Amino acid sequence: MADDSIEEVVKDAGEVPEIKYEYLDHTADVQLHSWGSNLTEAFEQNGMAMFGYMTELDTVDIKEKHEIIANAEDLDGLLYHFLDELLFLFSAEPYLICKKLRIEEFDTEAFKIRCSCFGEQFDLAKHPQGTEVKAITYSAMQIVQKPEKCEIFVIIDI
Amino acid sequence: MADDSIEEVVKDAGEVPEIKYEYLDHTADVQLHSWGSNLTEAFEQNGMAMFGYMTELDTVDIKEKHEIIANAEDLDGLLYHFLDELLFLFSAEPYLICKKLRIEEFDTEAFKIRCSCFGEQFDLAKHPQGTEVKAITYSAMQIVQKPEKCEIFVIIDI
Repeated sequence: MADDSIEEVVKDAGEVPEIKYEYLDHTADVQLHSWGSNLTEAFEQNGMAMFGYMTELDTVDIKEKHEIIANAEDLDGLLYHFLDELLFLFSAEPYLICKKLRIEEFDTEAFKIRCSCFGEQFDLAKHPQGTEVKAITYSAMQIVQKPEKCEIFVIIDI
Repeated sequence: MADDSIEEVVKDAGEVPEIKYEYLDHTADVQLHSWGSNLTEAFEQNGMAMFGYMTELDTVDIKEKHEIIANAEDLDGLLYHFLDELLFLFSAEPYLICKKLRIEEFDTEAFKIRCSCFGEQFDLAKHPQGTEVKAITYSAMQIVQKPEKCEIFVIIDI
């Protein structure tokens, strides 16, 4: 049948019907895997992984510095709130997209982080639109601490 | 802190660290919702919804006609195999992106469909790359038949 002339095929096909469909409930997630020589570096890298998903970090310059503070009851919670605070920096004033994170204080007893965030205001004219991060999740969260290396796995909803 | 001069902030930030992260296991799905005045139209529309997710259908012309046959044990299975056969038309020779589907035979007793598929070979130079459809699923599948209207819900992995 594929050997018919195009004219014959078009005639056979007839009119193209109107659209009677729609797309619902697009759900997606991605797992951020980061590592470092210690917990501090692995946390910083995980935050950067999140920003790297939002835009092309090569286009981002350092122009502003902001500070976030995260508190929690345990280490998983601290990771969650750390990422959530970073996401909030982006989602509202100052709409910051980070180029570098530096954790200034990491209290693993009181589960508190103070972090300097370097970057600039997100600008669609300068920064390619990446994927919107909708939420951080606790799903399959892993913080693996070894003497020589620390690894983190976090799933974010996109 | 955001009031520091940019020079001071850049100096404070220091070097941008090397990348120690990666993205794993990107999973996503979308629900195709289609409808029609009968089962035949709702099936055809669901197939078109899938092709509409793969590219911009306005760019597709009718140049070829191919036929698919789907068989199953029940109606859900028939929908699954119908979509799966269409997906296969696209994934391998003839790499067909459909502009129109016409079900020629719909046997709701023997659960068999014969369908004419009108379209052309997918060509990245002509057709914008949409989203890759990885698989059809039975997840939350619904075929709702009413006297005046038929509706279908299918979730596909993308």
